[in-house]
Amino acid sequence: MINWNNLDTLKSYDALKKVNKVNVAEVMAGVSGAERVKKYSVPMAAGLSFNYAAKAVDDDILAALKALAEEAQLSEKFEALYNGEVINTGEKRLVLHQLTRGQLGEDVTADGVNKREFYLNEQKRIAEFANKVHSGEIANAKGEKFTTVVQIGIGGSDLGPRAMYLALENWAKKTGNFKMEAKFISNVDPDDASAVLNSIDVEHSIFILVSKSGTTLETLTNESFVTDALKKAGLDQGKHMIAVTSQTSPLAKSDNYLEAFFMDDYIGGRYSSTSGVGGAVLSLAFGPEVFAQFLEGAAEEDKLAANKDVFANPAMLDALIGVYERNVLGLSSTAVLPYSQGLSRFPAHLQQLDMESNGKCVNRFGEPIDYVTGPIIFGEPGTNGQHSFYQLLHQGTDIIPLQFIGFKNSQLANDVVIQDSTSQQKLCANVAAQIVAFACGKKDENLNKNFKGGRPSSIIIGEDLNPKSLGALLSHFENKVMFQGFVWNINSFDQEGVQLGKVLAKKVLAHETDGALAEYSKLLNI
Amino acid sequence: MINWNNLDTLKSYDALKKVNKVNVAEVMAGVSGAERVKKYSVPMAAGLSFNYAAKAVDDDILAALKALAEEAQLSEKFEALYNGEVINTGEKRLVLHQLTRGQLGEDVTADGVNKREFYLNEQKRIAEFANKVHSGEIANAKGEKFTTVVQIGIGGSDLGPRAMYLALENWAKKTGNFKMEAKFISNVDPDDASAVLNSIDVEHSIFILVSKSGTTLETLTNESFVTDALKKAGLDQGKHMIAVTSQTSPLAKSDNYLEAFFMDDYIGGRYSSTSGVGGAVLSLAFGPEVFAQFLEGAAEEDKLAANKDVFANPAMLDALIGVYERNVLGLSSTAVLPYSQGLSRFPAHLQQLDMESNGKCVNRFGEPIDYVTGPIIFGEPGTNGQHSFYQLLHQGTDIIPLQFIGFKNSQLANDVVIQDSTSQQKLCANVAAQIVAFACGKKDENLNKNFKGGRPSSIIIGEDLNPKSLGALLSHFENKVMFQGFVWNINSFDQEGVQLGKVLAKKVLAHETDGALAEYSKLLNI
Repeated sequence: MINWNNLDTLKSYDALKKVNKVNVAEVMAGVSGAERVKKYSVPMAAGLSFNYAAKAVDDDILAALKALAEEAQLSEKFEALYNGEVINTGEKRLVLHQLTRGQLGEDVTADGVNKREFYLNEQKRIAEFANKVHSGEIANAKGEKFTTVVQIGIGGSDLGPRAMYLALENWAKKTGNFKMEAKFISNVDPDDASAVLNSIDVEHSIFILVSKSGTTLETLTNESFVTDALKKAGLDQGKHMIAVTSQTSPLAKSDNYLEAFFMDDYIGGRYSSTSGVGGAVLSLAFGPEVFAQFLEGAAEEDKLAANKDVFANPAMLDALIGVYERNVLGLSSTAVLPYSQGLSRFPAHLQQLDMESNGKCVNRFGEPIDYVTGPIIFGEPGTNGQHSFYQLLHQGTDIIPLQFIGFKNSQLANDVVIQDSTSQQKLCANVAAQIVAFACGKKDENLNKNFKGGRPSSIIIGEDLNPKSLGALLSHFENKVMFQGFVWNINSFDQEGVQLGKVLAKKVLAHETDGALAEYSKLLNI
Repeated sequence: MINWNNLDTLKSYDALKKVNKVNVAEVMAGVSGAERVKKYSVPMAAGLSFNYAAKAVDDDILAALKALAEEAQLSEKFEALYNGEVINTGEKRLVLHQLTRGQLGEDVTADGVNKREFYLNEQKRIAEFANKVHSGEIANAKGEKFTTVVQIGIGGSDLGPRAMYLALENWAKKTGNFKMEAKFISNVDPDDASAVLNSIDVEHSIFILVSKSGTTLETLTNESFVTDALKKAGLDQGKHMIAVTSQTSPLAKSDNYLEAFFMDDYIGGRYSSTSGVGGAVLSLAFGPEVFAQFLEGAAEEDKLAANKDVFANPAMLDALIGVYERNVLGLSSTAVLPYSQGLSRFPAHLQQLDMESNGKCVNRFGEPIDYVTGPIIFGEPGTNGQHSFYQLLHQGTDIIPLQFIGFKNSQLANDVVIQDSTSQQKLCANVAAQIVAFACGKKDENLNKNFKGGRPSSIIIGEDLNPKSLGALLSHFENKVMFQGFVWNINSFDQEGVQLGKVLAKKVLAHETDGALAEYSKLLNI
């Protein structure tokens, strides 16, 4: 029996608030710090590990978080989710993105089909299609191979797949898995589509139109830029464009598309990188085997998330520590700081994943709640960020929890030795140094040069950024966000907050405005 | 006589706190909202305007902010700055970035020279150099023209110039001003340099090494990747690389560089886009005339910032409203939301500009302060952000002030009509709609679909994103940050918070670690 209760009704939450706080600067100093780094670590899939030594926790707080996880029934709720309960209460839908990469529990039947089989079948169809494109069996009108793939989509159909593509581009080039360059068109700003179209050879490009509903205005508008470009080049759209959509969408059976691959209502946009939304573009860019490895990494990490022991469940542990920082310590944001150039857009994807999922102020039953929920997520790769916003992270008036990510090896394995160390060693030295600098600080009589420390952080460490570790990373954060939504008793899987803007934009375009909206429309010449 | 006092010692600040708060949802509804949009607007340079109708202010609060500006002597402090006083108290330096684009006050002499003449002379030298590169007078060993320029720099030597390049790339292509493609290498992650070098034709590339001190580790390391690549290609670095540095740096007179252009200690990295740091790469990419227009826009906007009337001084007004939100309303962050794909990296530049300048917890004399300072800055272009983190902005538990930017026209002027409107009209309709949705909200009995409104925003509106309006935009935010630093009585022009990490990273590389740092180093295989 699952109870869906607000966080502030849980006894374990009251208890958590009463546990003595940890002074991060104190416990991270000296021998105690060294012991924490060894002790507060939990293995993840694909050789990753989650180290939370520099977080503001100790054994007492961790015990209280464990009690919270139990009272909030986090494991039971995840179990209910992957066994096919209607977890998305707002839209009355199942939540099945984990099923795109593995079967954690019972068979899930919806719309009259076994959903695991449905997702596997779409993966198979995409793999066959990609292989035919790579072999030249599917080619342009002249019988020439396609060299570029362009994804047309916005939000979840853009940020996740784009971040994953960038994360694997160099790895694929190094390992001989690079098949086709990928480009992305997302913004309704006409300059976005125009610039991408100007930069490619349309005749050798294959386009993927991604819209679950088939009605996303930005995406349909951007399709028409491509349609125009194909026409101008004397090319047939039906031979250059495929669709990734739901079976009920108007795109599903249109002659405008060479092929349609399907997702469904149980995959939220921001959770769709492991569905056909990410699958088509990544399989075309890097081959289906690479996409399969990516899914494997995610599936292995999902299994860890299903672990009932919170201390062997990195996503749940990360989620609980985040709730503690947000609701007990009162911290309002989290910076995501990957020390890997390949993860340059990973923070932007996590920003969507987290903020669109948990930026909610009513519970899953539509009732008001009296506590804060999802934090602001932002970030840039290190070491770039060190020369940018880290000043505020170190010496600003607010404390911002930090999520570092680091790998022992680079992707391209091309390096130079300067001052007795490689660039990769410098990169790794910097992330280690930053964690300790943030945690411990450093006293200086000149207060302008004084570092208070006490800035909590965790780090995910891996060997390499490759398809499998990327899949594990993605799954970790998806499941972290899910567990936090469970703790806050909110629905992490709808996004009603995006509707009002759409409605008002339509009014502006129909010139049905008054008041301030009419005046802004005038100022903007609409 | 200028008094440098902490914000919480000012009578006008006490008075400001007592003024009745404004209910944004209420005042932005109906006729009142329409009137505010017409009334709360101030012209900027280059045809831009700053509209603050949807901010949580009214005439009473604005009067109190005006009093604060006067008591804090914001105009006098800016005057002192541009007349050459030592405003950067931490490093005991003048602050002269405005002088790179115009002379607002008296002649400023430092290091024995007239600094305006010095900056102008460097601009002239860069312009001549760029013209010679474009004409082919300066060419590679085979006498062939350079086609690509690669900037090597990090932080202020990267983010600003990169954001400006991306902002003008499409404009330049459309208007026939595109001379050379620019690329950027910044991260110490070896994959960054390797990937850029793999993507270019080294033989036809000219490199710009940018480091004021000539000792930035990331930049020198990345130089050596380029040195190796040039050697492998049998090319002479002395014919392919220039330096932008200070006259006292080791780079200034080295034979490794074809030419050296100079900046000085009075230009902070994050304020250096209008110095040679931005000047060399932008003049090479788009021609010196385009860079001159960019400076002209910034100079005109600087003049407005020197206006003693706060209501005709958009940067000062924006700054004061930001302080009100931060210190009186208690809001901790600001989202920057440009509705222009060209401004895709402008938020990342502002993130550095603002957070590195004002993320401080001691005043300009190194004394502790008892109030919050610089906010978190983050953002992505609209409409992309609408499909990402706007959910939290609309319905999250925290209120996040918003800074919109929009233009009436696109840069490439290539558009399609879908559902009776162009993409550009849809883009503008969306930004207008969002402002009103955030401000006014919309009641719904289903609380999951309810929008409380009351989310304050401002918008900068322009005709086009072009060199002049971009310069004005940049200046606006630089001066906004400066005025906020004055109000908070902090030094916005040093960055001691970046030092500790550097020191500890060196210890890691020298294997001089113990405690937690030694353990993290082991985990990362250093």
